[in-house]
Amino acid sequence: MIVADSSASLDELIGALRCLPGVGPRSAPRMAYHLLQRDRAGAARLAAALGHALEVLRHCERCNAFSEDAVCARCANPNRDASRLCVVENPTDLAMIEQSQSYDGMYYVLMGRLSPLDGIGPRELGLDRLIVRATDGVVREVILATNFTNEGEVTAHTIATLLGTRGLAVSRLSRGVPVGGELEHTDIGTIAQALAERRVL
Amino acid sequence: MIVADSSASLDELIGALRCLPGVGPRSAPRMAYHLLQRDRAGAARLAAALGHALEVLRHCERCNAFSEDAVCARCANPNRDASRLCVVENPTDLAMIEQSQSYDGMYYVLMGRLSPLDGIGPRELGLDRLIVRATDGVVREVILATNFTNEGEVTAHTIATLLGTRGLAVSRLSRGVPVGGELEHTDIGTIAQALAERRVL
Repeated sequence: MIVADSSASLDELIGALRCLPGVGPRSAPRMAYHLLQRDRAGAARLAAALGHALEVLRHCERCNAFSEDAVCARCANPNRDASRLCVVENPTDLAMIEQSQSYDGMYYVLMGRLSPLDGIGPRELGLDRLIVRATDGVVREVILATNFTNEGEVTAHTIATLLGTRGLAVSRLSRGVPVGGELEHTDIGTIAQALAERRVL
Repeated sequence: MIVADSSASLDELIGALRCLPGVGPRSAPRMAYHLLQRDRAGAARLAAALGHALEVLRHCERCNAFSEDAVCARCANPNRDASRLCVVENPTDLAMIEQSQSYDGMYYVLMGRLSPLDGIGPRELGLDRLIVRATDGVVREVILATNFTNEGEVTAHTIATLLGTRGLAVSRLSRGVPVGGELEHTDIGTIAQALAERRVL
């Protein structure tokens, strides 16, 4: 909605910034002016980083995460437990699990989730590649750590069905009241799940 | 807070994205993954647009807005009223006034505002250049259209003081209840101003 600047290169920069998720017609011009007026070094750095990343980054052959090498450092690490494979939706989820310091197995990053409404089915998500990875003969257990959204649950269920017939143990992150959570401030759906999946002490 | 990816080029891209205003530790990785996974064409476009903008864009000698030429198309337009000069904080403000289609004079874009707490005084803001521009012998009236924030008001007051001694008419956008506004939903400060600056009918 805010345009009206006579410079084609400025208009193009504002338009290109809108390729970024969450950047809209108001924030794109603000970003452009900020970079040009206050942070030209940052703008040059961003241009170089984008170009370099596009050039060198590809997907790790084993875990599908971004990597500069054919097999990323994590997958090549012999100290990790190769018998367990944790399936996550995206690299941020992987980073969160790593930060929990409670898992030392391998990963597979889907880079998305099943989303029929967006035309993303098992083929588009490349579940065949996950099946190949999980049935390498070394993996014994697949831990499904997709999100607990509708789409994440459908994705987990679909993968579980595909893998269950192949003799692999398939597990899912537990659901329940968050650590430190108070029942008063927990949604009733979560409380219902925590009741249904209560643990025997 | 979310890091832990082994690739230096991905880390650098995430870091560089944080040069953008409003992009933080959560949104920068999301943007990087989105570009690399879903919009590589957009990433290449953004890199090129940044590089091109940095190369060709400079400040118009007359209005200080971004321009590819020494004097921008707006300042070079002989159909605009050169006797009036409207001072705005940034290009977005200029675009808003242009969209109102109620002004056909010239502009001066401060590219900021006085902000002593941030170390931006008259010298840093380049008010001397505005004075030179306003006293070119053609400008008769300077319309101060800085924002009605504390800093914008101080900026307007300072410029009015500097220009008032040079025989120029200096005006300020009117304050009051917005068009279409209901008193019930207008803040009391604005109502007080609208009362104090009421117009005789």
